[in-house]
Amino acid sequence: MSIISQDIISNSKIVINQDKELYSFNLDTILLYNFAKPVKKGKVVDLCAGNGAIGLSLASKTNAAIYLIELQKQLADLSKKSISDNNLDGQVFSINDDLKNIQEYIAHDTVDTLVCNPPYFKVNEQTAIKDNSVLAIARHELKTTLKEIISTIKIVLKENSHAFLVYRPERLSELLSLMVQEKLQPKRLRFVRSSSQKDANLVLIDAIKTVKTASLKVEPDLVIYDENHQLSKEANLIINGK
Amino acid sequence: MSIISQDIISNSKIVINQDKELYSFNLDTILLYNFAKPVKKGKVVDLCAGNGAIGLSLASKTNAAIYLIELQKQLADLSKKSISDNNLDGQVFSINDDLKNIQEYIAHDTVDTLVCNPPYFKVNEQTAIKDNSVLAIARHELKTTLKEIISTIKIVLKENSHAFLVYRPERLSELLSLMVQEKLQPKRLRFVRSSSQKDANLVLIDAIKTVKTASLKVEPDLVIYDENHQLSKEANLIINGK
Repeated sequence: MSIISQDIISNSKIVINQDKELYSFNLDTILLYNFAKPVKKGKVVDLCAGNGAIGLSLASKTNAAIYLIELQKQLADLSKKSISDNNLDGQVFSINDDLKNIQEYIAHDTVDTLVCNPPYFKVNEQTAIKDNSVLAIARHELKTTLKEIISTIKIVLKENSHAFLVYRPERLSELLSLMVQEKLQPKRLRFVRSSSQKDANLVLIDAIKTVKTASLKVEPDLVIYDENHQLSKEANLIINGK
Repeated sequence: MSIISQDIISNSKIVINQDKELYSFNLDTILLYNFAKPVKKGKVVDLCAGNGAIGLSLASKTNAAIYLIELQKQLADLSKKSISDNNLDGQVFSINDDLKNIQEYIAHDTVDTLVCNPPYFKVNEQTAIKDNSVLAIARHELKTTLKEIISTIKIVLKENSHAFLVYRPERLSELLSLMVQEKLQPKRLRFVRSSSQKDANLVLIDAIKTVKTASLKVEPDLVIYDENHQLSKEANLIINGK
């Protein structure tokens, strides 16, 4: 039996239907939602959208049409329910298909803003993949790879438009290397740490599609807990909207 | 007329002869010296060594033979004087040649530790290159390129040995991309900022030569000035040795 919960990212006011048995949004989702700066009008794509938490929530920041691309039917169905529950049928569209087929729905060089929270783990890096196959596919490169995701972003994104990603620092070299190959030039990196004295847990990337080289800014860290082990002021603002 | 000064990095006790009219070591040099972990015995190379400040100072951390590779005769001559002044003739060797010719002196796959502070700037990025040609060559890609430097590191470094570099975050994507192409896998990155709320000014990289993939750690930032605009405890330890 699945139990659907309804959750809201920060102060977005958009209700997200989640099945905690399958996959729920987490800090990564909230951080990428906060980091992404969608265009005001045009076309936004959430690639590997899961239950659509980021793409749906972006409707609070933009009037652009938002396309959620998700392979897994159970997750895409949840996003369809959320679209309906939030009366976003005219703005947000759920596409339940493999990203290999994206050009059946989204023409190349047409996307104004793209967001993506890819699966983080190579299949061969993990000795045991958790039993829950929906979660496993969301977290591991079982159905796609980082290379394929970056290549897909390059295909659909307009020249000079931005892609926003959240990823793991462990694979940053591979990510930046694939991006440069595909003429996606990182413009901003922001590392996320649980405390200022710990290694980074996550990295937020803002890249543009361009044939030119681009100068990269490594912005101040986002530190989640301050020296008193309390949520930092900025983390509290991002997570709780206050 | 040139005026030679004698300076010491932190508490290394090694005297570095410098000609301030040409090129003097700076914070980048001190940080890379501090970041690098040379093997205790074997072969160390300082590539683009300048007046040899890093390679010479490393003699305080290791008994390995240290080779300083520097194209510019005026800088290599200063390093020769420093070798003599510090009685390091049996340990430190100055090679005044283009890194294109490195295999005339250093066999491939033989270097145990490599340090490099490359020229940071593409020639076409700068509208005006400063008049001082020695400084210009040290700072700009007039005589070599990042691609050539990374390729040279790959050639001379032993499998599983470490290269330590200091570079600019602006070109981090290009650096990591070239490293991955050459099977140099970054293992540690450390960003350096003037304050915790500013964009990073420098990045320190510890990479190993391996055909395997490697997991990258993004270590806690090195913040130079604390919230009271004083040298931070760690920066003071690195810069002043106390």
